[in-house]
Amino acid sequence: MPQGKPETVPDDGLTTRQRRKSPVLAVHTGIGKGKSTAAFGMALRAWNVGWPIAVFQFVKSPKWRVGEEAAFRALGRAHDESGAGAPVTWHKMGEGWSWLARPGDERDHAAEAAEGWAQVKRDLAVQRYGFYVLDEFTYPMHWGWVDTADVVETLRARPGSQHVVITGRYAAPPLLELADLVTEMGKVKHPMDAGRKGQAGIEW
Amino acid sequence: MPQGKPETVPDDGLTTRQRRKSPVLAVHTGIGKGKSTAAFGMALRAWNVGWPIAVFQFVKSPKWRVGEEAAFRALGRAHDESGAGAPVTWHKMGEGWSWLARPGDERDHAAEAAEGWAQVKRDLAVQRYGFYVLDEFTYPMHWGWVDTADVVETLRARPGSQHVVITGRYAAPPLLELADLVTEMGKVKHPMDAGRKGQAGIEW
Repeated sequence: MPQGKPETVPDDGLTTRQRRKSPVLAVHTGIGKGKSTAAFGMALRAWNVGWPIAVFQFVKSPKWRVGEEAAFRALGRAHDESGAGAPVTWHKMGEGWSWLARPGDERDHAAEAAEGWAQVKRDLAVQRYGFYVLDEFTYPMHWGWVDTADVVETLRARPGSQHVVITGRYAAPPLLELADLVTEMGKVKHPMDAGRKGQAGIEW
Repeated sequence: MPQGKPETVPDDGLTTRQRRKSPVLAVHTGIGKGKSTAAFGMALRAWNVGWPIAVFQFVKSPKWRVGEEAAFRALGRAHDESGAGAPVTWHKMGEGWSWLARPGDERDHAAEAAEGWAQVKRDLAVQRYGFYVLDEFTYPMHWGWVDTADVVETLRARPGSQHVVITGRYAAPPLLELADLVTEMGKVKHPMDAGRKGQAGIEW
């Protein structure tokens, strides 16, 4: 339920007000559904309070997140037209990253993932956004394409009040250690177990 | 990852195409964060494919879901203005339910919850929406304010292709049995454990 009481009050010299403004690092991991879905749900709240949102999709599938992308692009347009909410920027590795003049080498996923992380670092350094969704970002770390220690150190030292949510299985222990909020999505039951295939509107 | 293969193909006489159109009942339960957040993330996909969305908030807190509500109202307006996506209807128990001419008895949460469920039943019967978020609906069932057997039977017999997602702790076994998709959100780490209080943009 919404209004919880902290179990302890930390001896960090901060006021409650300061603690309310603390930048949050969230990790959604586990083998169940809802890791990215919940990250985009969080982004709805970020949009509403006016934090500029950036999504970095570290995945290649063309169908992936089309529903979320369409909805957030509509929310970004709503901001541009009426000032409501916040601007939305959406970057996809699967299309060679939108800030690159030319698409990268499609066969070299490792280089593409590294280039994505390099952009996230540049954006964090200049505090370009208020809320980052690093979707499926655990995989390039897990596969060694992006250095986990570099990610952890960069996030630990990030300036200002930039909130970050990272999704995907196999989240590395140092990342979980640094995170303020970790949720593990466990699979209890899934339609594919019953032989169903994915369907538009539900899976993408 | 997005394209999974079903582990088995059911002997139900349905084609893959028919199975792709099957109405889904999802339950997000467990003590961790992200149950409702993931439900609203699912609703983004529903919006994108044009399924009219209804949200029923079975909670009383005035701050609860303000970010999601603002974003979905913006998406609903985007639909009204440009035809993109789908219409969005948002009902809150905390304001006495919007279809009631007069607010109900604020002190009688049980009666209010029952009235909310009665409206869901009426809407399901006439297939008013394509995607229902019954937010925190497990609690009125858990507390005996809404009859779980009636919910299960109504959902089992619902006509057409109406998708339903139910969130909250203590989901009843018969509901989990009926559900096509069950995800348990487990708490691994939460900011309140470290003495933080909730903050706008993150918690609501």
